[in-house]
Amino acid sequence: MKFTIQRDHLVQSVQDVMKAVSSRTTIPILTGIKIVAHSEGVTLTGSDSDVSIESFIPTEENENVIVEIFQQGSIVLQARFFSEIVKKLPMDIVEMEVANNHSTVIRSGKAEFNLNGLDPEEYPHLPQIEEENAFKIPADLLKAMIRQTVFAVSTSETRPILTGVNWRLENGELICIATDSHRLALRKAVINTGSQSSYNAVIPGKSLSELSKILDDTSDLVEIVITENQVLFKAKHILFFSRLLDGNYPDTSRLIPTDSKTNMTINSREFLQAIDRASLLAKEARNNVVKLSTLADKNIEISSNSPEIGKVSEEIQAAELLGEELKISFSAKYVMDALKALEGTEINVNFTGAMRPFVIRTIEDDSMLQLILPVRTY
Amino acid sequence: MKFTIQRDHLVQSVQDVMKAVSSRTTIPILTGIKIVAHSEGVTLTGSDSDVSIESFIPTEENENVIVEIFQQGSIVLQARFFSEIVKKLPMDIVEMEVANNHSTVIRSGKAEFNLNGLDPEEYPHLPQIEEENAFKIPADLLKAMIRQTVFAVSTSETRPILTGVNWRLENGELICIATDSHRLALRKAVINTGSQSSYNAVIPGKSLSELSKILDDTSDLVEIVITENQVLFKAKHILFFSRLLDGNYPDTSRLIPTDSKTNMTINSREFLQAIDRASLLAKEARNNVVKLSTLADKNIEISSNSPEIGKVSEEIQAAELLGEELKISFSAKYVMDALKALEGTEINVNFTGAMRPFVIRTIEDDSMLQLILPVRTY
Repeated sequence: MKFTIQRDHLVQSVQDVMKAVSSRTTIPILTGIKIVAHSEGVTLTGSDSDVSIESFIPTEENENVIVEIFQQGSIVLQARFFSEIVKKLPMDIVEMEVANNHSTVIRSGKAEFNLNGLDPEEYPHLPQIEEENAFKIPADLLKAMIRQTVFAVSTSETRPILTGVNWRLENGELICIATDSHRLALRKAVINTGSQSSYNAVIPGKSLSELSKILDDTSDLVEIVITENQVLFKAKHILFFSRLLDGNYPDTSRLIPTDSKTNMTINSREFLQAIDRASLLAKEARNNVVKLSTLADKNIEISSNSPEIGKVSEEIQAAELLGEELKISFSAKYVMDALKALEGTEINVNFTGAMRPFVIRTIEDDSMLQLILPVRTY
Repeated sequence: MKFTIQRDHLVQSVQDVMKAVSSRTTIPILTGIKIVAHSEGVTLTGSDSDVSIESFIPTEENENVIVEIFQQGSIVLQARFFSEIVKKLPMDIVEMEVANNHSTVIRSGKAEFNLNGLDPEEYPHLPQIEEENAFKIPADLLKAMIRQTVFAVSTSETRPILTGVNWRLENGELICIATDSHRLALRKAVINTGSQSSYNAVIPGKSLSELSKILDDTSDLVEIVITENQVLFKAKHILFFSRLLDGNYPDTSRLIPTDSKTNMTINSREFLQAIDRASLLAKEARNNVVKLSTLADKNIEISSNSPEIGKVSEEIQAAELLGEELKISFSAKYVMDALKALEGTEINVNFTGAMRPFVIRTIEDDSMLQLILPVRTY
């Protein structure tokens, strides 16, 4: 293997595939990045066996030469050292050459590194995925759908299935749901599937978070293929594989209340900041719980009381406040997470009493929904 | 106590005095910030008993009203909560009022906090310091002198005196020296003392680092008063007290070689980056040690070899290279720290053999010096 490559492209690709490399793997070769030089360019692969990322650097792009291949071949290099090295190379062009015994020379300007490589034949093969039933989503929409749901997955392994986001594709609509059993985030979008396929899969939240970091904020289409135990995301020059979680995702549809007793329309930012302030004293004393009380004249009060430290209260005027009087306590963190995930300046909050879950939605947009269980405080 | 104050000024002052507040103190009242409202304005104090910081906010500045005092008085509020609260208050104006039992109301817009305060009478008094023998240094010079020495203090408590920077004022010259016994940093400057006073004090490195963060990068003069066991820095609206370290600082003058056998003049940035690259493979395998070898034609080679991982070497051309041939090994971190501390694009390195300390200086500037002990590698 011998090629020269533009450093910037190499740095970017290494950074992308590094997102799949774990230093805590039990399979030694997976601490490395696999590098393959072939006639079309250079392909890098990183994997922790749950997630695998492949990044392709073409020989030419927009008539600029990016890679020059002198000899095809492959090698696996320690990811930690290789990624640090490419970042700090002195010149714009990098030369890489595999000599005897997988020993690999990395040259740039007058700097020359000799890294002990590993046998590329030992690197596991990526899953083979039939790409027949792919559907496509613009990258920016995909990132939004991830951002608006993934924060609500469970971080506890008590019910492993809840550490993933449930993706259901039915009748040309993709519905993403995440819940940790204290709150639930739902986002849906109409998808151009091209076929009548339907899926029901649970993708690990961690995989989606990493995918989201790699994707650019463009409207370029990302191709998605879901198989029985794998999902593949294909973006420009990037293949992102993740295993799926085993098991059935709970039916969450009956959790979402259809009626409501108190309805509020309020400025999202004012609501968020008042809760943020009230939570300052609540953080440790009371498990981050704040209280909302309806007052007269469309006013609400956000308050918190920690006998050791002090108390805080703040009034905000809602744009609209209809229905029954209400005093309800909730986790400031959960409501703040939900408000940050929603877009728009005004939001609707629908309560069904102090002991029932309440729902937060952006006004005139039913494609997303945040549901939160209140906290009993008596 | 009752006053209104501009939030920005309060936030800045709280941030400054917070640098002295430790959450791990054994004296409960020192987890608080003392607030005193008096006829000239508001004074905040934070202290961990080693360092005390007093910040003064005047009632008026440049004809703008900053503070309005309605009732003089004082209170101590939990620093952690108070600092978070002031940062997140909604409006530009903050009202503070102490009610019964040290309970303190903080109001801004419609947000109202009630914090349980502590008795200000219990807050320790700051040291009384005679200000007769003060000397003055511009703030930016003081920050540079701290930056160029403090990184070299010892982090080990084996010899506590080495965790401080030795400040010696003699014949109108201030000399600052720090060493951890593997390297030494020295910076001197001519000071306008006004008197024939001389001092020899050791200031904790931690205190100087905190002081440096508080000072602005201006040429405003900072007044410095050194007593037997305290040092006081007086900047605009800020008093910064630190205890001094007990004991005699070792005589370091005989450590600095007066002759040399190999002399090199080299571009500081190129030298630093080559060492940085060579250290990438050296980090764990060999305790961050890299090797410098002189070559022909004013070239030097920086290299490192970690049998498990690989090796790296790089040639750089020096601007000047005179004297004996040399192979020397040193800690990459120590030399990089030293190079970052020095100013100027070209530096002189004077070696006295592979086993003797070597000295790095900025060209044509003897006000600063970095000395480093080599590492034996055979």
